[in-house]
Amino acid sequence: MEIELLKKVKTANPMILNIANSVTQSDVANGISAIGGSPLMTNYDKEIASITKMANAVCVNIGTLNQEQNKLSLELLKQAKKYSKPSVLDPVGIGAVPERLSFIKELCEKETPDIIRGNAGEIASLVDISWSAKGIDSIDEDKTDSIDEIAKNCAEKYQCVVVVTGATDTIATSDKISHISNGSNMFTVRVGTGDMLSSIIAVFAAVSDGNYYEAAKMACLVFSLSGELVMKETPNVGPSAFSSRLLDQLYTVNVEDIKRWGKYDE
Amino acid sequence: MEIELLKKVKTANPMILNIANSVTQSDVANGISAIGGSPLMTNYDKEIASITKMANAVCVNIGTLNQEQNKLSLELLKQAKKYSKPSVLDPVGIGAVPERLSFIKELCEKETPDIIRGNAGEIASLVDISWSAKGIDSIDEDKTDSIDEIAKNCAEKYQCVVVVTGATDTIATSDKISHISNGSNMFTVRVGTGDMLSSIIAVFAAVSDGNYYEAAKMACLVFSLSGELVMKETPNVGPSAFSSRLLDQLYTVNVEDIKRWGKYDE
Amino acid sequence: MEIELLKKVKTANPMILNIANSVTQSDVANGISAIGGSPLMTNYDKEIASITKMANAVCVNIGTLNQEQNKLSLELLKQAKKYSKPSVLDPVGIGAVPERLSFIKELCEKETPDIIRGNAGEIASLVDISWSAKGIDSIDEDKTDSIDEIAKNCAEKYQCVVVVTGATDTIATSDKISHISNGSNMFTVRVGTGDMLSSIIAVFAAVSDGNYYEAAKMACLVFSLSGELVMKETPNVGPSAFSSRLLDQLYTVNVEDIKRWGKYDE
Repeated sequence: MEIELLKKVKTANPMILNIANSVTQSDVANGISAIGGSPLMTNYDKEIASITKMANAVCVNIGTLNQEQNKLSLELLKQAKKYSKPSVLDPVGIGAVPERLSFIKELCEKETPDIIRGNAGEIASLVDISWSAKGIDSIDEDKTDSIDEIAKNCAEKYQCVVVVTGATDTIATSDKISHISNGSNMFTVRVGTGDMLSSIIAVFAAVSDGNYYEAAKMACLVFSLSGELVMKETPNVGPSAFSSRLLDQLYTVNVEDIKRWGKYDE
Repeated sequence: MEIELLKKVKTANPMILNIANSVTQSDVANGISAIGGSPLMTNYDKEIASITKMANAVCVNIGTLNQEQNKLSLELLKQAKKYSKPSVLDPVGIGAVPERLSFIKELCEKETPDIIRGNAGEIASLVDISWSAKGIDSIDEDKTDSIDEIAKNCAEKYQCVVVVTGATDTIATSDKISHISNGSNMFTVRVGTGDMLSSIIAVFAAVSDGNYYEAAKMACLVFSLSGELVMKETPNVGPSAFSSRLLDQLYTVNVEDIKRWGKYDE
Repeated sequence: MEIELLKKVKTANPMILNIANSVTQSDVANGISAIGGSPLMTNYDKEIASITKMANAVCVNIGTLNQEQNKLSLELLKQAKKYSKPSVLDPVGIGAVPERLSFIKELCEKETPDIIRGNAGEIASLVDISWSAKGIDSIDEDKTDSIDEIAKNCAEKYQCVVVVTGATDTIATSDKISHISNGSNMFTVRVGTGDMLSSIIAVFAAVSDGNYYEAAKMACLVFSLSGELVMKETPNVGPSAFSSRLLDQLYTVNVEDIKRWGKYDE
């Protein structure tokens, strides 16, 4: 685990350009800022090229897509490739909504992102595996083996890093796999924690010198552990106080915390 | 009062589809999640049919409407009727903005929602009664009698359940009426608490087996009481801390709290 | 310093109409409400005229502009002039994004706002001075002299009040200048505090009887001091808890706090 990436994030203050889920964009922007990045959200075709050039990584979240955002998302991934900026895709809801799945399959074929993060149902649907997902919620069943298969298949199919989040987070390329087992079930009650993680993966990718697998692992570890530390300190916290404390934990979490409490297999 | 509906909400985890007020949608989504539902917000015409079929209830809020959202709102209410999903309408600002009132009157004639929730000024304007409303704020004058009339008239006119919120909440059908007197004046300082209640009414409607009057009563009771319990525990809380504690109270509020502290006349 | 304006805000409850940054609009709306105003956000061309007439001041923020919002922003400033409502412009990101700068220059020439608020990089770019700005972040270097020049030049050029925020806030007209030195560096970590201040300037402008220079000074003082008081009371607070406490401080801040702790030169 490249734990020192956390220090790089805090020093480099990378700018992350997002096409965001409008519901959760305030939390996402504040998550990026708390961990040490600088957030920018856009909905404007005319500025996409200029600001992609300035950005250090990009993240596309389709939580509240529509016709306009579809076009923008495609354009943003295209510009990211042109300017060699790392890109993360969060395919919110494709496990449940067929219109979203067909859009994302088309998107991934035209402009493959460097990293895809979703829950098991979302990633499964990208490789045509049926998975009992309810809406856009994450799945926390104990099917680690099958999740490994899904993650690897998806990484192989799109030749990118794949992150499947749940009770355990699984990070895969076509030939490597890693698991993070920190976390808290409060992540499933507070809306938008997955969106926040996707953009935080972009933050780590921005300072990773192209090693997106290590970036994704560290982002999941830092994020899951931060939630776990909140619950350790305030076990009876509700979902809203959890969210606030999570942001403040992301602001202070450090290399020592990770060395002491991090649970990962590789 | 069908207090057991609260248990049903917590077990059934109904999915609530929203056309949301963009300003308050994060609070609304987290309110739905805290009480036990699963929120989904949409702005996309192409997915409306698919996701209405999956949803257990829908809520239309016109707090930040525009041409696009007008069309979507009409379409969502139409699909909700087609698939027999309960629908809630929050006609934000129609007491003050004539363009909103004319849109909502047209909407209600074409696709009447099952439940309408607003403040006295908003509901009064739907039945052409003049009411001194300032902008979109709720009215907390002590005009219970006239509010009863307004609520009943509106329920009669549109043949739906009508909820008028204020210091006292009034829930009416054309022939029944009920009042909730729990609450806190902090609801008027924190932006979006009305929007949150409208979507929480949809949560209760989703598990009510078609009894929308009882669903609306319970939603108002649970919501108003949760705010009151926050103030009881932390009397000097400011509006932002109130909002966070309200969400956390919605997460833990239970049947015993309601039996002990609920104030309602029927 | 016209400290009594704070009391006027709390009594008058002015309605502030915003074209908002979609990322931060919830915080902004709650900031307006906490200090004593009544927020309204719009994205709808058809209602602009009606609601500008009702509003007591308007604020245009271009943090998430697009083609539609560009047109709306121009129209809102036009209507504000027509109905003599004070107007504030927050030119987010123009120091870094050329497409935004050219839009704002055009906007300011066609419909000059009464007050412009930005960081040093943004205001510098309006008067064609180069300034090392990174993205949309505020600059807290100690270049008070050159900031004075930039602020005055901009105020002269557009004949309006100019506010440059940073470690010290600078408020200028073409012939007057004033500085506020309260504050906290947590303002730079929490996303959207600048947006919140811009709308709070509109709140004070709404009750200032046309004295926008005094309104801007008081808004900066109240806002900066509120942040400072939060840090004084809870020195180790993280950015999310800071944000919540800031809103609650804005709700309770009073004339005595300002007399006791305010730091300003005029």
